[in-house]
Amino acid sequence: MKLYKKAILPLGFQANGISAGIKRSGKPDLALFYSGLPANAACLFTSNKIQAAPIIITKRHLKQSRYHRAIIANSGNANCFTGEQGLKDAEGISAVLSRAMHLKKESILVASTGIIARPMPFAMIKGSITRLVAGLSAEGIDKAKRAILTTDTFAKEVSVRFNYGCRRVTVCGVAKGAGMIAPDMATMLSFILTDAMVSQGALKKALAGAAGGSFNCITVDGCMSTNDTVIALANGAAGNTLIGPGSRYFAQFAKALNIVCLELAKMIIRDAEGATKFIRINVRQAKSVAQAKKAALNIANSNLFKTAIYGENNNFGRVIAAVGASGAEVSQKKMKVKISNLSKKDIDVDLSLGRGRASATVYTSDLTPEYIKINAGYN
Amino acid sequence: MKLYKKAILPLGFQANGISAGIKRSGKPDLALFYSGLPANAACLFTSNKIQAAPIIITKRHLKQSRYHRAIIANSGNANCFTGEQGLKDAEGISAVLSRAMHLKKESILVASTGIIARPMPFAMIKGSITRLVAGLSAEGIDKAKRAILTTDTFAKEVSVRFNYGCRRVTVCGVAKGAGMIAPDMATMLSFILTDAMVSQGALKKALAGAAGGSFNCITVDGCMSTNDTVIALANGAAGNTLIGPGSRYFAQFAKALNIVCLELAKMIIRDAEGATKFIRINVRQAKSVAQAKKAALNIANSNLFKTAIYGENNNFGRVIAAVGASGAEVSQKKMKVKISNLSKKDIDVDLSLGRGRASATVYTSDLTPEYIKINAGYN
Repeated sequence: MKLYKKAILPLGFQANGISAGIKRSGKPDLALFYSGLPANAACLFTSNKIQAAPIIITKRHLKQSRYHRAIIANSGNANCFTGEQGLKDAEGISAVLSRAMHLKKESILVASTGIIARPMPFAMIKGSITRLVAGLSAEGIDKAKRAILTTDTFAKEVSVRFNYGCRRVTVCGVAKGAGMIAPDMATMLSFILTDAMVSQGALKKALAGAAGGSFNCITVDGCMSTNDTVIALANGAAGNTLIGPGSRYFAQFAKALNIVCLELAKMIIRDAEGATKFIRINVRQAKSVAQAKKAALNIANSNLFKTAIYGENNNFGRVIAAVGASGAEVSQKKMKVKISNLSKKDIDVDLSLGRGRASATVYTSDLTPEYIKINAGYN
Repeated sequence: MKLYKKAILPLGFQANGISAGIKRSGKPDLALFYSGLPANAACLFTSNKIQAAPIIITKRHLKQSRYHRAIIANSGNANCFTGEQGLKDAEGISAVLSRAMHLKKESILVASTGIIARPMPFAMIKGSITRLVAGLSAEGIDKAKRAILTTDTFAKEVSVRFNYGCRRVTVCGVAKGAGMIAPDMATMLSFILTDAMVSQGALKKALAGAAGGSFNCITVDGCMSTNDTVIALANGAAGNTLIGPGSRYFAQFAKALNIVCLELAKMIIRDAEGATKFIRINVRQAKSVAQAKKAALNIANSNLFKTAIYGENNNFGRVIAAVGASGAEVSQKKMKVKISNLSKKDIDVDLSLGRGRASATVYTSDLTPEYIKINAGYN
């Protein structure tokens, strides 16, 4: 199994990214990921009660079609809290694309990220579709990965390759993150493409497992977005024997997906808004994995902890207070906290609760004046 | 019923505050509140699983004695995560005071606030007790109120007076707050003294009700402390007819306590670390009060919302995302958000969820670079 710190499109996929004019800055804001073969899809969405229009439309298309062919994603406008018109716009985008590409509308999945409660510039997007489709290529992933970014300072991309008999399977992932990152799919979009021949059940199972230990274990500010979406497409172009949820090669495929998701999740934290530190919080000796994760997340979301790390201030009282507030069971006598050298960029917080054998790891960033500067002005 | 924006000690109480040397700055750090008559006590504590030693000792003394006579509180050291020695120190402080004042040890309640996981400078405190007791006076409340402060920039104090037949009843409250403020008794100490003759049952009932709408409805940073304590002492010196939980005058007494707690809670928010805005979040048309409060608190604890308010940035998408993340039921069609003029210091956020008739109000502050500066350096 080999890891590449760049996006390598798997067989049978093409992509493109263009500037459609949604962002006033003129930066790329419209991305297309396309599979020449019908692909199995697995998706995860925000658990926010208010869900953006593209999520509602994507869920509908997942039900209406067995296979999927394309993901169209825009940045700059979240198409959230936009009412009936927002739903029409999201559906309209897939309709326009379906006509341009001669695809069934239901085989197209849509995603948006950006500002909430602004009408979608539908005409702009419609007018750009021909250009978007015309530019599709196997190398277009480098354009697509940039067109989904918002306040990100770099594109998140990773690929894993492994051999399955004499076939080579590629799993490629791109993501956008930056702010508003919290567990249960915080503001992030992530698209994972693979040429593995994998059943929908196996794809769903592998994605749920991979997200549980990656996207759901990162937090920047505890703020959960309305648009978070992870879409995995598997088109089978590698020609391997079908991987089912119980088959011999499932573990290998799941491992590849785990690596892709974890690498993307870590990159999101490395690029957290205003962050100067990358913090790994490892909770051990918890009564259950759920309690370990709860304790780790409560530390990760504590503004007092995050500012202390920013200040390179070894105030482990902040860790203790946050763990106690999490509700996880702790033995005050056996509890141990260790914080690594704070002058480095990468910080490890190791915490033993002294109550059991379960553990969990969560990744987060520090809270800095730059975070406030970015978010005080974002609109 | 008359409100005074200052602490007026009720009949039969004395207080004092001195510098015992716990704070390196030399600022006052040891306070004593004393009742000449045995008083009924009602207390509320942090729901943090890790509780500081003084809380454990105070809970013990509440069980061991029917009446209470004094509260000794220090700032500068939280006496938390200090193991067996911390318990000995908290108990030792009450023992030293009990000898100096000829009181039963169990009639003394203790509270601490400050840095976590540092040994208590017990000898310093012990050596200061004679001076602390010698300075007790009816006017000493002005010294006591300052000796409980940490990063506060002003003392929180309020008094309410009302007539009960021909007797005048005073309810006086002081508090410390500033940072680490979250519902369920975030880091704050509050001491409420009254000369009302009120049964312990009525005092407990009134305090629980008052805290529910005040101390538990404020949040600065969602960080729950290990030391939060509210203590109410009622010594009956006003000589009114006893107020029981069901008596005619209970509502009036409860109202006075509500006002005292709400005023103190609002002052804590006005003095939130680094705050430039005082934000009132009013959620209406919720399915239940619990859901209204949950939605309001989730907005109040959203860093993205708080930074937007700091930036005077009318980004109501932040409100929508936070409400959705709270899990409270909302009607996307009927939901309404109104944010008052952001150039003012006092901001009102009015939100209708369109799902019912319940409402709740929560108070919070904005998140500013100054908050980070204060907390990056605090140790």
